[in-house]
Amino acid sequence: MPPVAPRSGDSIFANLEHMNAELFTLTYGAIVRQLITDLEEVDEVNKQLDQMGYNIGVRLIDEFLAKSNISRCVDFKETAEVIAKVGFKMFLGVTASVINWDADGTSCSIVLEDNPLVDFVELPDNCQGLHYCNILSGVVRGALEMMHLAAVAGHKIEIKRGFNED
Amino acid sequence: MPPVAPRSGDSIFANLEHMNAELFTLTYGAIVRQLITDLEEVDEVNKQLDQMGYNIGVRLIDEFLAKSNISRCVDFKETAEVIAKVGFKMFLGVTASVINWDADGTSCSIVLEDNPLVDFVELPDNCQGLHYCNILSGVVRGALEMMHLAAVAGHKIEIKRGFNED
Repeated sequence: MPPVAPRSGDSIFANLEHMNAELFTLTYGAIVRQLITDLEEVDEVNKQLDQMGYNIGVRLIDEFLAKSNISRCVDFKETAEVIAKVGFKMFLGVTASVINWDADGTSCSIVLEDNPLVDFVELPDNCQGLHYCNILSGVVRGALEMMHLAAVAGHKIEIKRGFNED
Repeated sequence: MPPVAPRSGDSIFANLEHMNAELFTLTYGAIVRQLITDLEEVDEVNKQLDQMGYNIGVRLIDEFLAKSNISRCVDFKETAEVIAKVGFKMFLGVTASVINWDADGTSCSIVLEDNPLVDFVELPDNCQGLHYCNILSGVVRGALEMMHLAAVAGHKIEIKRGFNED
């Protein structure tokens, strides 16, 4: 497997259009709050966040492929590394590591070293079970599905380092 | 009135944490879509977007005051210029102009030269009347209210250059 250069995410990120991270964080918080009000059940909110992420992921993959100039990954392990080192850096501006591989290499966890989505967030007691950052898993799921990866082979990437996801 | 240095928004923006603008745009699109599904009426969606923006604005003003190092504005005209030239640059990464002042200087429009929220967006026919970018008006309203400006004096800033807001 060719090594993935961690710096590539930084250089791509530097050349893209940017927004202030705090505005995004607060806007994301407003979505979650709205969903909790509308849907009431945290399980439903988790599902909806994942679905929203999925819809974003199926579109974001185009931007990723257009801007990252990444060549085809040889296997799922390399794919996960690219998502962690290039994808998360490119879109969220943060780095991530891949851990917890299962024996057959089809399931792993991506751990965010810093998660801008949870800045300033405090979850009230009635939100136990809320996967606050579920949108990220959805984004990865949508992006992978567009690459015919997850759907075909049951590959799974779990995102860690958010509320209830550590 | 001391001149507002337009470059200050750029330099502040450069020193803040960033996110990819496309991710924000798609995430915002997902919110609007979700609200349309849940609330069904575009008037309700407009109201909800404004309210979400308001909740964001009342918090974002802290970041603005902490990072912008702006001194107290002498009047509402200067306030509007600071929002357009510093605030929008700092958070959305775009510049804006202030136009359409009314005779007594309490109402104006801020025109975005480029609005990242509407990139790739196409509104279906059943969304006539949707103020797609209403969250921005809400943010400004919330931020102004924290400065005891809008609520006290009925000042109004309208944001232009989005769907149905040109």
